Order: sequence, then structure tokens, then C-alpha cells
Amino acid sequence: MLTTTIAAIGPLDQTAMAAARDLQARLTKPAGSLGALEELSVRLAGLAGACPPPLPEPAAVAIFAGDHGVHAQGVTPWPQEVTAQMIGNFLAGGAVVNAFARQAGASVTVVDVGVATPLPPVAVGDAAEAPRLVAANVRPGTRDLAVTAALTRDEARAAVETGIRVADDLIEAGAGILLTGDMGIANTTPSAALVAAFTGAEPAEVTGRGTGVDDETYRRKVDVVRRALHRHRPDPADPLGVLATVGGLEHAALAGLILAAAARRIPVLLDGVIAVSAALAAAAFAPDAVGAMIAGHRSAEPGATVALRHLGLDPLVDLGLRLGEGTGALLALPVVTGAARVLHEVATFDSAGVAEK
Amino acid sequence: MLTTTIAAIGPLDQTAMAAARDLQARLTKPAGSLGALEELSVRLAGLAGACPPPLPEPAAVAIFAGDHGVHAQGVTPWPQEVTAQMIGNFLAGGAVVNAFARQAGASVTVVDVGVATPLPPVAVGDAAEAPRLVAANVRPGTRDLAVTAALTRDEARAAVETGIRVADDLIEAGAGILLTGDMGIANTTPSAALVAAFTGAEPAEVTGRGTGVDDETYRRKVDVVRRALHRHRPDPADPLGVLATVGGLEHAALAGLILAAAARRIPVLLDGVIAVSAALAAAAFAPDAVGAMIAGHRSAEPGATVALRHLGLDPLVDLGLRLGEGTGALLALPVVTGAARVLHEVATFDSAGVAEK
Repeated sequence: MLTTTIAAIGPLDQTAMAAARDLQARLTKPAGSLGALEELSVRLAGLAGACPPPLPEPAAVAIFAGDHGVHAQGVTPWPQEVTAQMIGNFLAGGAVVNAFARQAGASVTVVDVGVATPLPPVAVGDAAEAPRLVAANVRPGTRDLAVTAALTRDEARAAVETGIRVADDLIEAGAGILLTGDMGIANTTPSAALVAAFTGAEPAEVTGRGTGVDDETYRRKVDVVRRALHRHRPDPADPLGVLATVGGLEHAALAGLILAAAARRIPVLLDGVIAVSAALAAAAFAPDAVGAMIAGHRSAEPGATVALRHLGLDPLVDLGLRLGEGTGALLALPVVTGAARVLHEVATFDSAGVAEK
Repeated sequence: MLTTTIAAIGPLDQTAMAAARDLQARLTKPAGSLGALEELSVRLAGLAGACPPPLPEPAAVAIFAGDHGVHAQGVTPWPQEVTAQMIGNFLAGGAVVNAFARQAGASVTVVDVGVATPLPPVAVGDAAEAPRLVAANVRPGTRDLAVTAALTRDEARAAVETGIRVADDLIEAGAGILLTGDMGIANTTPSAALVAAFTGAEPAEVTGRGTGVDDETYRRKVDVVRRALHRHRPDPADPLGVLATVGGLEHAALAGLILAAAARRIPVLLDGVIAVSAALAAAAFAPDAVGAMIAGHRSAEPGATVALRHLGLDPLVDLGLRLGEGTGALLALPVVTGAARVLHEVATFDSAGVAEK
């Protein structure tokens, strides 16, 4: 399934992109005055192979949740149980991602791809828009990447294929854009390791303070990332091997989601550092997958900026968020929709009877 | 009317702000992880004098349109008639501001506060959400600020009071947030002069290329701003005098709109350089008016950045837009709504049964 997904990913459609550039130049506004939205609209046209591209609606957030054996190294002050507790919060509609999703009219799907502790009993609403839980636990958390490979290659592949299946299901159900979400206490540590592995950056350059750790914990975290890279020597040309040795189950699943979106030519709006570290894996599997990626926001985590630079993506929102869940992607969604909408709804100089300079 | 509006403007409510900070700390997310949205939610609480503050809904965009005598100096390649033609485009729903307003569910009100050429006949839709035209022409464009005062003090005051009236009407009709819009060929030239007058910055530092002028036009534009400042020596302690000598009718009206929003304690979301140069005038009339201002985006015009720094405001969106109309404010609106929504809808650690670190 991974192989056929990768094989289906191709480059952006240059003809549709040229048509979008030509249309932008005829709309009733000074050339270039919509800044980054103009090139974004061109990329959406290239991905869809059509000008105007379809509006990216409806939007679907997929939150992949997993736990991390590296939690044992003391890289975060939060107890591991919070991953499962937050799934309860997502399903009850009480998290920030739920508030932003309601505002944006996006659906929320929570995928247990590897939570380590029991999920709390939750009364899930039966309304059509209620968050949905997909049970797809590959294993109860990764192993400790500081001392052994986090996953076997088979486990990593199973998680990637879970992401592919979730994307396919959401797209079959009509989603016009996918948004990446994540939950996993300690998951900024494997994110930093993935960014270092795929970009060659130094551990200290890509490791951040996550939820806000103190100086001592931060130094320990950098050291864990450094030791993991030294132990596993992950090969960026072998993305499955990188995900298996220093990644997480939610990272692998997110890489699968991104690949499937690219294969189906549906845009995928990336959230923060967990998403963009997974996007590096997706790009290593299939370089053309970058054409489907839109960087939602610049996470406060330094690894996110390193990863975005490596992918050649500029984020749409830069407000110092470091929450994850999909919150940064949701804040960026109206910008993406607006960029596409301009090509549908704005009059041309000719049609509106407006003089040009 | 201007005097009573200014007298009604007071500081943010510190009790409500403290309550919002306390609530932010108890919500199910790491402290500070919502970045700029947290302080924004605190300011909204302080403005409303309530925690949580009301959601900023419904949103109303007010586009003030005026022409500029300084057009005669050749500061732009666009014919002056485009101001009137674009009003036709706004009323027909064909401009970018209309597309973004439909997406955001915002109403659009176009105010002719000083257009110089006849408005085109337009079949305005009679749907409740159709754009509305307010006829309030103070004079058919300003005089040429390079050679004489753009307006008399009485004309400037009439335009300010038009802005106050428009804001009062929109708020009476239920608006929970006002968004600034503008249209006026050549209006980045008076904007640059206003920013220089209120901040003391050099003309070359605050003058930009507007719709994209060539090098020769740009040099002429800087020279026009320099000569205007030298001729009029506007006194920043006399904002009406500054607006009259080097401003525009839409700038004066926008200053009035901002003051009225602050007096009614309704947030006002600023668009680009025309809005923030008008905001400098509003702040000179009433320093506490800054408490009602939210910087929607960072315009590509350099004067916008100088003005925002002077006001102490950080923009929410930074995507290289330089279109005006209210487009940058509309892109930022979901961020403002999201910031307020978090205080209404997100569960606390206690209520959700989530452990803290």
C-alpha cells in the first residue's frame, strides 16, 4: 500500500498553474497585491490540475495520538497519561482544536495509533459533526529511542499505512483538504531527532522547549537527541528506517496521511513541528509530495523552522503557537480557502469595467 | 460629536484582564502555548470589561472611499476614475474584499466620503447581505497637499464625524467588531505623510511603492511627501490639523470610526497602511483608543510597520499583502474570533480530568 501510494504521486500541473497566474493578472487588484496568497492559489491549481482549483472544503482534521518510550528519559514534566486524557478531551469537544474546528467548520477525527495507557470512557456525541475515534493502535507507545530503535520497520510501516487509510477514508467521504493534528506527550523529542536526521542539522539547533521545559530538562532533551542519532545513525535515504529508529507512531502515520493526500491530489495543511518533521519523511519517500503540502504556521519550536526551510515552504501564520493538536493548521485554513476563492469570485478588469494603469 | 466621543474613551479594564489571564492558565493546554492569541484574548476581555469577552460577531467592514488632489503630482499610474469604478465593483460584489467578506460572514458598507468622479450606476442586490452604499461626500477629493492644505479643518472634522456616525450605526445594528477598509487612488501618499507627521520618521522611510510604482514615480512620491511636510509643518499634538493639511478624507473618516469603536468598547480590526496611518491620528486624539485597536496584518508598505511600532501593535497576519479594501483585516478576523472563542469553549484541567505537569 505504501509502494502504490508513492507511485501515484506526481508533479504539479504546469498548465493549470500558468492559467492561474494569467487569471491572477486579470483580476481587479494591482498585480501581486495579494502577496503570498497569489502563489498559494497557483499551487492549489497545479495540485488540482484545474483553474480555478476547487475550494478546499470540507476540511478534515486528523489527530494522530501516540506515546513515546523516550518519556522515561525525563524529557518532559507531563505524565504520559495526559495523552489518553487529552483524547478524552478531544472526543468531548473541550480542547482548543475542537474550538477552532467548530469555528472553521472542520471535522475532527482522532486516531489512536499508539497510545500507551487506557483511554478514558467518554460519552461521544452522536451528532454528525461530533469528533470520531479510530482505534488503530500499532503498539502501546514506542520503545525508548535513547536506548533502542523506537519501532521495528514493520511497526513503522503499519503506522504509515494507518495514515494512508485514514486519509483515503476522509477523502472518500468528501474532504477537500486534510489538516494534520497530533497528540503525544514527549513527541517534540522524536520530532527533533527526525528533523536532525533528515536535514543534517545539529541536535541543539532543532531541539526546543516543547510545552515549556526548564533549562535542566532542555539540556537532557538535547543530549537524548544527540545520543539517539549517534546510536542509530539514521539514513535519510531510508525514511522508513528513520521513522523506525528515532520517530514516533504519530509521525509515521502523519507521513502516510501526507503521502495519500499527495497521491489523491488533495492539499494537506501542516500544523507544527510534529507535522513538519513527518513531512520530511513524506518528502524523502516521494519528493513530489511537497507539492501537496501547505505550511499552516511557524511553530515556536526551532526544529519546525529548520524543517520548513528544508522543504522550501513558507508558513501562513506566525503567532508563536506551540500547542499542536492541529490548532496552527486550523488558524491558517481561512487563508487557504481565501486564496482559492479569489480565483472563483473576483471580477476581472474587463468584466467589472475598471480601468487599468 | 468628536469631543464627546473622545471623552468617552477610557483605559482597558484591569479586573477583566486579570480574570482572562487566570482563565488562560487553567485551560487544557500548556501555559503560553497559544502564543499571541492569549494576550489578544486578554485585551478583548479588558476592552469588553468582561471575561470571557463576547465573541466578535457579527463583523462589519466599512470601506471609506475618497480621492486625492495629490494625484496631479503623478504619484501613481492609475487614473483617478478607478476609485469610483472600484466602488461599483464593491457594490456588485466583485472585489477581493467581497470574496473575503462572504467567506468570513462579514457585512460590507461602502462610504463615499470624498470621491471626485461620478459613481457608476450599479444594480445593488437587495439581499440582506448585499453591500450597502452610504453617500456622505464631504468634497470631491482633497486639494493637492503638495501645494496647499488638503482640507480645511471644518472639512476634516466633517469627515471624522462621518466615520463616527458610520461606526455608531454599525454598532447600533449589532456589529461586534468593526474592520477598516479603504479605497482611494493615490492614498498611500497622504498615508506616508501622516505616518511621518505623527512618528517623526523620514519621508523615505515611510513611503512605499503602493500599487507597484516604478523607480522614477517612487522618487517623485518621496519628494512630494518631503515637500508637503516642509510646507505644512504639521503638529502631531494637533491631529485635526495634521489630517487637514496632509491627510485624506478616508483617513479622517477612519480615525473617526476607530474613535467611536473605542468609545463604545468594540474592537476595531485595522487593515493596511491607510488604516494604521489613520490609527495614529485616532491615538493622537485619544491615547486610550489604542486599547480597541487590533492590527490585522503587516502591509508591504514600509510606513505601516513604522506606524504599528509607534502604536505598540503586533500584526496578526504577515503575508505581503498591499491591496487595502479591508482584505488584510478580513484574513485576520478568524484569529481574533478564535482568541475569544478559546475563553468560551475550552475545558479546564479540572473539568476535563486532565493531569497537570
